[in-house]
Amino acid sequence: MPRTLLLAATGLSCLLAASPPVSAVGSEEAALFARFDAVIRPDDLRGWMKLLAAEPNHVGSPHDKANAEWILAQFKSWGWDAHIESFDVLYPTPIHEALEMVSPRPFKAMLQEPPIPGDSSARAKEPALPAYFAYQGDGDVRGELVYVNYGMKEDYDTLERLGVSVRGRIVIARYGHGWRGLKPKLAWEHGALGCIVYSDPQDDGYGQEAAYPSGPMRPPHGIQRGSVEDYQFQGDPLTPGVGATKDAKRLAISDSPVILKIPALPISYADAQVLLASIGGQVAPESGRGALPITYRVGPGGETVHLAVKSDWSLKPIYDVIATLKGSTLPDEWVIRGNHHDGWVFGASDPLSGQVALLAEAKAMGALAAGGWRPKRSIVYTSWDGEEPGLIGSTEWAETHADELKQKAVLYINSDTNHRGVLSVEGTQDFEGLVDAVARSVTDPETGVSVGERMRARLRLAALDSHSDDKDHVKAVAAFAADPARDLPIDATGSGSDYGSFVNHLGIPALNLEYADEGKSNGVYHSRYDTFEHHSRFVDPGFVYDSLLARTVGRVVLMAADSDLPLQSASDFAAEIAQDLKEVKKLATDQRDKAQKQAALLRDHAFTLDADPTKPFGVPKALKPVPAFDFSPLDSAVTRLTKSARTYDDALVTHGSALSADRLARLQSLMQGIDQTLTAEVGLPGRPWFRNLVYAPGTLTGYGTKTLPGVREAIEQERFDDAVRYITLTAGVLNAYSDRLDQASALLRETQQAAR
Amino acid sequence: MPRTLLLAATGLSCLLAASPPVSAVGSEEAALFARFDAVIRPDDLRGWMKLLAAEPNHVGSPHDKANAEWILAQFKSWGWDAHIESFDVLYPTPIHEALEMVSPRPFKAMLQEPPIPGDSSARAKEPALPAYFAYQGDGDVRGELVYVNYGMKEDYDTLERLGVSVRGRIVIARYGHGWRGLKPKLAWEHGALGCIVYSDPQDDGYGQEAAYPSGPMRPPHGIQRGSVEDYQFQGDPLTPGVGATKDAKRLAISDSPVILKIPALPISYADAQVLLASIGGQVAPESGRGALPITYRVGPGGETVHLAVKSDWSLKPIYDVIATLKGSTLPDEWVIRGNHHDGWVFGASDPLSGQVALLAEAKAMGALAAGGWRPKRSIVYTSWDGEEPGLIGSTEWAETHADELKQKAVLYINSDTNHRGVLSVEGTQDFEGLVDAVARSVTDPETGVSVGERMRARLRLAALDSHSDDKDHVKAVAAFAADPARDLPIDATGSGSDYGSFVNHLGIPALNLEYADEGKSNGVYHSRYDTFEHHSRFVDPGFVYDSLLARTVGRVVLMAADSDLPLQSASDFAAEIAQDLKEVKKLATDQRDKAQKQAALLRDHAFTLDADPTKPFGVPKALKPVPAFDFSPLDSAVTRLTKSARTYDDALVTHGSALSADRLARLQSLMQGIDQTLTAEVGLPGRPWFRNLVYAPGTLTGYGTKTLPGVREAIEQERFDDAVRYITLTAGVLNAYSDRLDQASALLRETQQAAR
Repeated sequence: MPRTLLLAATGLSCLLAASPPVSAVGSEEAALFARFDAVIRPDDLRGWMKLLAAEPNHVGSPHDKANAEWILAQFKSWGWDAHIESFDVLYPTPIHEALEMVSPRPFKAMLQEPPIPGDSSARAKEPALPAYFAYQGDGDVRGELVYVNYGMKEDYDTLERLGVSVRGRIVIARYGHGWRGLKPKLAWEHGALGCIVYSDPQDDGYGQEAAYPSGPMRPPHGIQRGSVEDYQFQGDPLTPGVGATKDAKRLAISDSPVILKIPALPISYADAQVLLASIGGQVAPESGRGALPITYRVGPGGETVHLAVKSDWSLKPIYDVIATLKGSTLPDEWVIRGNHHDGWVFGASDPLSGQVALLAEAKAMGALAAGGWRPKRSIVYTSWDGEEPGLIGSTEWAETHADELKQKAVLYINSDTNHRGVLSVEGTQDFEGLVDAVARSVTDPETGVSVGERMRARLRLAALDSHSDDKDHVKAVAAFAADPARDLPIDATGSGSDYGSFVNHLGIPALNLEYADEGKSNGVYHSRYDTFEHHSRFVDPGFVYDSLLARTVGRVVLMAADSDLPLQSASDFAAEIAQDLKEVKKLATDQRDKAQKQAALLRDHAFTLDADPTKPFGVPKALKPVPAFDFSPLDSAVTRLTKSARTYDDALVTHGSALSADRLARLQSLMQGIDQTLTAEVGLPGRPWFRNLVYAPGTLTGYGTKTLPGVREAIEQERFDDAVRYITLTAGVLNAYSDRLDQASALLRETQQAAR
Repeated sequence: MPRTLLLAATGLSCLLAASPPVSAVGSEEAALFARFDAVIRPDDLRGWMKLLAAEPNHVGSPHDKANAEWILAQFKSWGWDAHIESFDVLYPTPIHEALEMVSPRPFKAMLQEPPIPGDSSARAKEPALPAYFAYQGDGDVRGELVYVNYGMKEDYDTLERLGVSVRGRIVIARYGHGWRGLKPKLAWEHGALGCIVYSDPQDDGYGQEAAYPSGPMRPPHGIQRGSVEDYQFQGDPLTPGVGATKDAKRLAISDSPVILKIPALPISYADAQVLLASIGGQVAPESGRGALPITYRVGPGGETVHLAVKSDWSLKPIYDVIATLKGSTLPDEWVIRGNHHDGWVFGASDPLSGQVALLAEAKAMGALAAGGWRPKRSIVYTSWDGEEPGLIGSTEWAETHADELKQKAVLYINSDTNHRGVLSVEGTQDFEGLVDAVARSVTDPETGVSVGERMRARLRLAALDSHSDDKDHVKAVAAFAADPARDLPIDATGSGSDYGSFVNHLGIPALNLEYADEGKSNGVYHSRYDTFEHHSRFVDPGFVYDSLLARTVGRVVLMAADSDLPLQSASDFAAEIAQDLKEVKKLATDQRDKAQKQAALLRDHAFTLDADPTKPFGVPKALKPVPAFDFSPLDSAVTRLTKSARTYDDALVTHGSALSADRLARLQSLMQGIDQTLTAEVGLPGRPWFRNLVYAPGTLTGYGTKTLPGVREAIEQERFDDAVRYITLTAGVLNAYSDRLDQASALLRETQQAAR
């Protein structure tokens, strides 16, 4: 939000409504922040992480439960009203797993992560789960290997050109370029019998930096565990859309659509190198070559590989810790803050770096409360369980309390893994003003400027030499960031942490904050080596940035809880959506052009003529001709949104500080649920659980966001009827958002009339 | 040229001028080609290569001289008027070379290519030269290593951002992304003491395919030799601009500007891996990581490396074989055909694959001549020596005979290394019509379509998913290739083989033809393993495409020698130049935008804020603000050229076949030298030997072409005064070309008036 608006929108200094704007500096706000910051002590965070990461804390482990109980006790000791809310969820754990090459030469994959002396991996007493994929489909299969690079859609397009099929074979993919769960899913869709996913040293091993314990990166036997639940919905696979309470109605396991149909295993590059070096056939194209000292071939080469996985498919309990600090004037408006506490093994960086920041915030707020301060809105702190297998703890809680949340939630603020580095934020983009205000107020310890200024530098530089596919988007973001009068642009939410059910299912606005890019945790991500020792040596030595995360997120929570005026910056949102629409229209044009060019090339047999006929090859599947879409409903909706947003923002600046208590309450009520207008009951095509028509994770990216997803993905995936349908539907939700803005503007203008 | 023009332009069937258009099919032309083709026998090529590649044949070796004498004898035996023309040129050979790490641990680089059993490397009797760089600067230096990736300009920009200097250190660069000679040159310009260049397995080793002898790629100890002569001019370093005849005036070695000032050595990746693994400091950015199983670091890391090279700087004789088949009606118009015969060691692929094709053509033409056929123009076949050290044989010959060549040369047609694959042509682009006619008439053995159709498919596909920096250029070429009514687009000439002095120095039009991309010779390029065995196993099994090259180039020579009408397709040239100008103007705009953006980022300290302050870093040098150029002289020149070209091409089609012998002779005389109008005595900025203002190799790419180089490189290199000056100069030469076209058009129209 513009600086003037920021001043108007936060009224920490007054308990009454209709408070005059306060300055961000020298106000009681700053004084409050100073008192808050004084309680954040890096040594606290260090000690808590050491304790919480001492033993494996996956779902169902003794330490996971013990951590929940310890966290509960802390909240209580800091004066919070806290309890544990438990759910029973499907959480398979492996009984048996095997991967071996039978011929041409025998080889048995180790599938183990040996302990490293001096590290928690050697010190812990409790057993770690072996490396596996939650929700893969058990099985026992044999076949040739096909190396599919990252195993994403474009890789199958490449295989088609190479004339190689995975049907009846076992796929080996490397991690990266999209969410892991898509790799076995796409393998299955293409007829594969099984799927192996390994971590190539190019992506997070010695290709990036020295391997742990010499450096931060993945050692030869490090394995990335993870969930491969098919995100048609999030959360417990047996209770879509409802909380997995004791007496919830559950699907039969065999009926759950989100459990994969083929066995799959993650492996290390020490194991993978032997398999990859044995694959015959054509050489992988350049983009499919990693950093192992071998010739990467796609196969098939006639070898026989045996893959077997068998799991215990029982329900396990999960433990969400929920703590509340009740609001003084607006107790039924909730600012929710969360971070999960379960890890794949020790989980020091993921998730405990964020968890200890959350705890530091809670301790500091407890101290403020003990000193007599109370937030206007209620603050709800949550420590989720079961995030790793499928964002389960947050999703089951959100589904259980959906109606109440829709009525009360103002904003959900998430964190997860944290690092040394530059602030990185994703969220619903009408909250850019709040983020900007906070980011301007926090000083970066490495550079001495505000974390917002540093983030702007990063965003601007990203565009300087960008050659990426989304160059236009990167350039637009850089242009936003280069304008000091404009709020910091934040990324649209995708998926990958606990904000998912809030934004995607309920339409509750959310933010996800982290510091990133300098400390490296990806080299031990989801492995047995994500330990306290690793985090404190390589990711955030001195717990400087974990503490900074606490100070940053704490400010967001405090400002959101204490602001009299609504927090949305409507013009920021309108500008982002206008850019999104521009990109979607360009996508249609580019894809039409590409389909036309490809058709001419197919007609002229160019693919066949270009190929080396001494090797197998294929021609690409013909792209569907792209019709001319009538984007006018969206054009109109965006034009209207832009106008309504400007009117609202102006009215808020002009009249916001002069509202009567009654009118302020009506304004708060109107704006509390405005982001929910972006949802539609029908949901997105093929995944109705995802109701937000503006923000969604991509079905073929997994983590990566797709704004205006009903339209954008329909075009990308050649579902052109869906595109036409969702142009109207998406225009509809944008118009509903504008309607609400217009009501709010009218209310604000009433004030003026009343004042005359 | 358009099909109609092709029919008009070749009049093989008639010895008289003013012949009517002939069809490309069913004519005497086709019958001649059939008789020609019948003499081309793959077994001939195989036998000749085996003989010529049996021993090392570098400049000064006994086998190099023996090969020249043997080639001479073949020409004579086939009825050609042939002789050897010899020059004495500076050709340093190493006396002593050493590369060792002194600390932290001792290591002595092997610097040797061990023989491979079953290969010529194990069978030959004569010694090979050790791996070295011709025209490096002898020296004995010690220092830390800095890894500079490809060692090109953009890599030094990257080092600047990383805060790393090479001053007083020894640079280690990998091969690729530009001509090798620029690597030690740029290292020296940045203050380095010495330069090592190695072949990373990512670029031509196991990263691409299995290593020799299992596959075609570079084995661990394979080394790429080569010249690092600084191409301010080409040829003998002591005789710039004049032939290196016995009594030529020579520079003192110390006065030659093209000999580098620091010692440099090429090494294998087996040697390089030990050095690279020892380098400390920051990790190289992603684009700087190869396929060795190490963490690539840029250094410096405190180690001491010792590099020493000492050479014998004596003159050595080179032996060009020159053979002539005198023309019947136009004996003083020469069609020149060349390929070098010297290699770095055995040189099977480079250059003998092209040399045996040339010999096959010469034998076939000899057979045609023995059967009573005579070309209209004189055909001059040349087998060059001394190409490897600096295109010396061709350059000294061209300089010696410059005046005669300017009067008589119609076209120079070059080949060099050949492979299995798709036709690839570069040249002066007013010869696209001739290339198109030939490419339509030759059938590709792998696909059964014409080699032209296959080349078009390749060019069109290149644009489909291009993300390269010259995407606009690639797309423009694809659009040309997609239009079947347009001639095949050919690449502009850069540098790298014997056409250089013809095009760049004398302005004589040239073509360079090869088949490429399927057989792989780059894995043994300039190593001891470029052998008969390697070529016949991996590059062109069965000598199918080497024979095809002979058939293809033979047709070009025959058509050029027997055409009554001039060979230029002026409209093709105009279209290419129009595209070039578009790109140059876009370059200026893009660079202006980039400089402005960078200035704002520097002002806001964005580079500093973006950097990780726990590591060294630097800010980029400020780009100069790019002035608004007045491109109108070039705009006008291109508009005029386009119009003059269309008029000329139309006039040639309409009136070309009706010319009187006298007018035809005048037309031939006008058009023989038209490409020389593209030269200017002043030459290009800083390299006056390069007189062609339309075509030149890039000063910062080495091989890669830069069209309109006086303007384009001046903008790229921020010499904006030069850019202004060369806009006028380049417009001038284009206008001179148009003048000549207009004279020719007028002459053709006279015919019409005369005919009335």
